[in-house]
Amino acid sequence: MSGANKSWTVAELAELVGGRAAGDGRAVVERVAAIAGAGAGDVVFAEEARRLAEALASGASCVVVPSGTEVGGRTAIEAARPKLAFALIAEVLHPPRKLPAHIHPTAAVAEGARLDEEVYVGAGVVVGEGARVGAGTQLRAHCVVGRNVTVGRGCVLHPHVVLYEGVSVGDRVVLHAGVVVGADGFGYVRDEAGAYHKFPQIGTVVIGDDVELGAGTCVDRAALGVTRVGRGTKIDNLVQVGHNVEIGERVVIAAQTGISGSTVIESDAVIGGQVGMGDHARVERGAVIGSKAGILPGKVVRAGAVMWGVPVRPLDEYKRLNALWGRLPQMRADLEELKRQVRELTARLEGGKE
Amino acid sequence: MSGANKSWTVAELAELVGGRAAGDGRAVVERVAAIAGAGAGDVVFAEEARRLAEALASGASCVVVPSGTEVGGRTAIEAARPKLAFALIAEVLHPPRKLPAHIHPTAAVAEGARLDEEVYVGAGVVVGEGARVGAGTQLRAHCVVGRNVTVGRGCVLHPHVVLYEGVSVGDRVVLHAGVVVGADGFGYVRDEAGAYHKFPQIGTVVIGDDVELGAGTCVDRAALGVTRVGRGTKIDNLVQVGHNVEIGERVVIAAQTGISGSTVIESDAVIGGQVGMGDHARVERGAVIGSKAGILPGKVVRAGAVMWGVPVRPLDEYKRLNALWGRLPQMRADLEELKRQVRELTARLEGGKE
Amino acid sequence: MSGANKSWTVAELAELVGGRAAGDGRAVVERVAAIAGAGAGDVVFAEEARRLAEALASGASCVVVPSGTEVGGRTAIEAARPKLAFALIAEVLHPPRKLPAHIHPTAAVAEGARLDEEVYVGAGVVVGEGARVGAGTQLRAHCVVGRNVTVGRGCVLHPHVVLYEGVSVGDRVVLHAGVVVGADGFGYVRDEAGAYHKFPQIGTVVIGDDVELGAGTCVDRAALGVTRVGRGTKIDNLVQVGHNVEIGERVVIAAQTGISGSTVIESDAVIGGQVGMGDHARVERGAVIGSKAGILPGKVVRAGAVMWGVPVRPLDEYKRLNALWGRLPQMRADLEELKRQVRELTARLEGGKE
Repeated sequence: MSGANKSWTVAELAELVGGRAAGDGRAVVERVAAIAGAGAGDVVFAEEARRLAEALASGASCVVVPSGTEVGGRTAIEAARPKLAFALIAEVLHPPRKLPAHIHPTAAVAEGARLDEEVYVGAGVVVGEGARVGAGTQLRAHCVVGRNVTVGRGCVLHPHVVLYEGVSVGDRVVLHAGVVVGADGFGYVRDEAGAYHKFPQIGTVVIGDDVELGAGTCVDRAALGVTRVGRGTKIDNLVQVGHNVEIGERVVIAAQTGISGSTVIESDAVIGGQVGMGDHARVERGAVIGSKAGILPGKVVRAGAVMWGVPVRPLDEYKRLNALWGRLPQMRADLEELKRQVRELTARLEGGKE
Repeated sequence: MSGANKSWTVAELAELVGGRAAGDGRAVVERVAAIAGAGAGDVVFAEEARRLAEALASGASCVVVPSGTEVGGRTAIEAARPKLAFALIAEVLHPPRKLPAHIHPTAAVAEGARLDEEVYVGAGVVVGEGARVGAGTQLRAHCVVGRNVTVGRGCVLHPHVVLYEGVSVGDRVVLHAGVVVGADGFGYVRDEAGAYHKFPQIGTVVIGDDVELGAGTCVDRAALGVTRVGRGTKIDNLVQVGHNVEIGERVVIAAQTGISGSTVIESDAVIGGQVGMGDHARVERGAVIGSKAGILPGKVVRAGAVMWGVPVRPLDEYKRLNALWGRLPQMRADLEELKRQVRELTARLEGGKE
Repeated sequence: MSGANKSWTVAELAELVGGRAAGDGRAVVERVAAIAGAGAGDVVFAEEARRLAEALASGASCVVVPSGTEVGGRTAIEAARPKLAFALIAEVLHPPRKLPAHIHPTAAVAEGARLDEEVYVGAGVVVGEGARVGAGTQLRAHCVVGRNVTVGRGCVLHPHVVLYEGVSVGDRVVLHAGVVVGADGFGYVRDEAGAYHKFPQIGTVVIGDDVELGAGTCVDRAALGVTRVGRGTKIDNLVQVGHNVEIGERVVIAAQTGISGSTVIESDAVIGGQVGMGDHARVERGAVIGSKAGILPGKVVRAGAVMWGVPVRPLDEYKRLNALWGRLPQMRADLEELKRQVRELTARLEGGKE
């Protein structure tokens, strides 16, 4: 959600995004908006040709269009990638709300904790002994930062985030409400009597810079060693990241996906929603896994592969098999008809013998 | 969970549910109960014939039975739909606990917030500037009501609900523990260097009257515009509702289902558990989607259709295909046998030529 | 996560796990560790032959090895099951942190609540009227223990756990951050106007001794009666347990699985991640359900069966069908070839007649 915004001129924004201003470069825009209902002070964008006429006809003060678009005198910004330009413009028009340095009287900050300058500590926040929170970071209401946790600079922890003891979070990380980092991994050993004993879950979690974790997402601590989420990785809501998982940089994972213990997802992979990954699997660099797919334990998905299904197969193969599956009734009918014809042929031949 | 209950007579309850009292209409009942173990003061119900004998033989003070049932002098309520009557009786015998008007000393209510009469504000609750909470609403422990949030009348927010800035909640809404409304939608644009920039997530969420959201469920704010959950819709636990999703009225969604961005679910649809819906899909009015189904991005499910599978097909077709799938080994054997027979026939024919 | 640890000698640990010390039995170990990077004071283990050489060559002060392993003078513990021994050793070297008896000044403990000796009550904790908390139990920050809840002895409730009114939790139970026990089950009855009325959800939940529930997991209260989780059962993160579900003893359930109302899982069953179970199903004693499987409503999985797929079939059958599914293109080609051959045979026969 956005904080306060300041006005920018079209010319300034064009420069910011490496684009070209058309029309009135001194026009002022205050916010980004959807095309429908856009008005004065709004900037909208049209990446696809089919949205262009509508965008140009809107009441927006500025339209971001593909480079070389004929805008007929309209105030606009031409950009190689209008949607990216629009996102960059939104970043400056709608910066995250910056809460002022403050420690709420109901917060409980341990004496041994270290808060750097400009830290916001909301109502009910708990910061344990030995914890360290970097400059400009916001700990919103009821966040619990455990003993010896490290949180970097410029982070936003939305309400009710829980960081268990000893985990580490980089700079500019955003953790949405209810995120849990560092709960015990799920590993047990059974004894002769059938009782489960916890395999030690005494490792930690390291979250890289510029990571964003969605609401309710859980990242478990390693059994021994480290569970890692690499720099610039973005994870949606209600995702489960098991113990000792290693996620690379700039990975995207959609909602409700679950990743079992010790699985590796290399950088630049894209993982759909509700995907399940067995333990000790590996998704190599830049691979794409479709939503609801299932990856078996130990499976390796090669770099750049695009996979779907349970268990995963190459997308094209999976689609072909799915189509054939839909033709099973026809195949079965063909089979019955062939049986009939072969019986008839056989009968004729036998008849011919007589 | 129920609050205090008051006594009702069988005659009063029969009138309440539009049914007919049989036996002692002045008998008093105090609570609803399961048939097994029911005793004095309890009311039970039997909707299906197979439960009737057991219900009538129970120790319950009153049995709700289908209209026209022969109860042999037993105190009972005849109703067209006993289960519905039972639910309506439970509503009056077990109203939700009404907590008194109160602001806990550890709550942090911003000066600019407006609480109407009879609002309950529990321990650790945070209410931001510009927020408004309607009459009789209960904000239980540690709920966080963000800046400029609107909550209607007669709502119950169970502990640890988080409403991000600016979202709006109707009247008589029930939000279970850990619900998160208004976290950022999951949308990014990649730049040339491969880094992800957040597509603006500056819209809002509007939750209609009489909605219930289960524990841990997340409803993301729109990118631009509004994510909507319509009046009377009931959503189970751990469900993910993406940005710009529009859910109609009286929709039912079971646990752990995920709905991707901009998808529309029209009124009176029924969605099973662990369903996944791609973005920009549309489930039309009254359609039914079976549990674990997958709906592809952009797919339209027609009004009233009953669908299942990944990707969804009409239920009957899906079941037929599943059955055929189970016969694949037989089909394969048939195919091998046919090959053998055709080879034999061919050999005979060739032999016959000689 | 582990608390303070004390030193043990190799001989003491060998005795503890019923193993045999080799080498220097007086050597002191302080912690368990992964083989890579292990050093003085560490104990590591090797269960499989392929890890043995690496473990013996590590810098660890002690290696737990299979009984009868030749360790060449190395300090070691021989054990029948090294991984189990390692887990038992970890239990004593890394006991859960014991927080001291304490009631934080921001906690809100109702006058009528009863806390036994040595209870830890963290910041912002709420304990309702009539609640009872057993000796040595830790209620960490912001836990909400509702009215008339019973929590046993020696439990750890991590931050932000919510126990709704009236539920019961056994001894030595561990509830991870954000667990919700006792929210309303998901059951409604529709009236003639199409509106949903809540079927009464006024039962309760009983959690047995030695249960562990993962972060964000939800266990709903029964409609009427009791939702049960049996002694020694371990449940991973973000699992949904519906109303009136009965889970036996020593059941293991992996992350993101969902169990619909009134389903029964008998003791010693093992359930994978992202499994979905329809209502009124039954998984009998010791059955194993693979990840992402789907169990239809009312389905019975026999004791000891190993099942997979949607809907579940015996694992071997499912794997065979999956393999055949991959051969559908070949089957289809075979079918077309057969059609051609039969046409040809038919033509020849007809030709022969002329």
